[in-house]
Amino acid sequence: MSEHTVASFDAELQELRRSIMEMGGIAEKMLADATVALVRRDVGLAQSVVTSDYRLDTIQRDIEEKAILTIARRQPMAIDLREVISAIRIASDIERIGDMAKNISKRTLAISGQFEPQRVVLGVERMSDMVLGQLKDVLDAYTTLDVDKALEVWRRDGATDALYNSLFRELLTYMMEDPRNITFCTHLLFCAKNVERIGDHTTNISETIHYLVTGQPITAERPKMDRTAYETGQPEQAGGAAGA
Amino acid sequence: MSEHTVASFDAELQELRRSIMEMGGIAEKMLADATVALVRRDVGLAQSVVTSDYRLDTIQRDIEEKAILTIARRQPMAIDLREVISAIRIASDIERIGDMAKNISKRTLAISGQFEPQRVVLGVERMSDMVLGQLKDVLDAYTTLDVDKALEVWRRDGATDALYNSLFRELLTYMMEDPRNITFCTHLLFCAKNVERIGDHTTNISETIHYLVTGQPITAERPKMDRTAYETGQPEQAGGAAGA
Repeated sequence: MSEHTVASFDAELQELRRSIMEMGGIAEKMLADATVALVRRDVGLAQSVVTSDYRLDTIQRDIEEKAILTIARRQPMAIDLREVISAIRIASDIERIGDMAKNISKRTLAISGQFEPQRVVLGVERMSDMVLGQLKDVLDAYTTLDVDKALEVWRRDGATDALYNSLFRELLTYMMEDPRNITFCTHLLFCAKNVERIGDHTTNISETIHYLVTGQPITAERPKMDRTAYETGQPEQAGGAAGA
Repeated sequence: MSEHTVASFDAELQELRRSIMEMGGIAEKMLADATVALVRRDVGLAQSVVTSDYRLDTIQRDIEEKAILTIARRQPMAIDLREVISAIRIASDIERIGDMAKNISKRTLAISGQFEPQRVVLGVERMSDMVLGQLKDVLDAYTTLDVDKALEVWRRDGATDALYNSLFRELLTYMMEDPRNITFCTHLLFCAKNVERIGDHTTNISETIHYLVTGQPITAERPKMDRTAYETGQPEQAGGAAGA
């Protein structure tokens, strides 16, 4: 590339990175607000989360368009091409994180004023705080291109999945104890599942950072520990994980 | 482009389209098999669905790589660029449809042998059949670049969401009637939600086909009718939809 082309390309990359950081900031705030709104049954805050999602969708579509134009115009190779592809992938993950936060807030609107075992709400809050930490750290890792930090987030998601597993069982137990808990706990189950999926998206972003910096996929097995799809609701067998 | 370049570009497009049709065929089979496995509690069939997902992921990654290379190498404009971008988007939607089918089968493995109200399983089957119809039709619409057919699928998804809403309520009712139904019905709720999300992906594909052929997004409001996030579990107020 000529010096001019290189400078233009760098400017386009800067622009993409800035947009992604903006998306990251919005998504972090959405998850934090969605959690506070759930715990406090704050209908106004929940509604503002639902509204924020539109902005996230707009920026993502914009990033995708600009990235594709950059590829067509500059024909970047190797690390430069990976930069642009990574921008597309990370924007897509952040957009989906926003969807999950929006889903949580929609459910908050549904369950406001219902009978509630507050303890399980706090369980979802704890899980959400863990995932918010993952999200912040993985966005930092993207800014500084810190592969070790990205891998650390990737590994940490196992603990989030473990917490989800125990919450899932706890919620089923509450439902069995008292039918008045069923509607409320069903919505909480979906909220917890949304938080768990946000955790998965942070590991996707970790994988993208690894690919961006090293040019290689992560070869180790992802620490996937959401086993509730296999949850039978029966007491565990000695020596066996729950189900399947 | 020179004649040679045009021919090479066409060959690359053909290859992308072929790969997408292969993905579509696999995803259709996964959804159909996942549904049969759920209804019949066929553990072997459910396991084969889980295994198939790997192939789908591989083809998707391959399509993405080839598409990006094509953009960098050929610098396509207008309809040609839209062809390549659409391939990336549709592959991503089909890959996620595969994930949903896999999730359904994981839950089938969890609930095999459990107490069951067979009627609600048939409700999920009916919903799944509707969505399978949407998937087949939208893949046909992609093959023939039939915008009207794509729009027709896009509109049809409202009926799927309506069925999901009524299934959601029915499942809550079963849980309230008998605590022994709770674990089973919770898994079925997640299965139904997965089918509903597959429906959403078929509408995404409709939108991509519209963009591909016309160069414009669909401007009408998407017929989003999954209102269960707002479901309160209370009898409906006169004149009001459920919740929010």
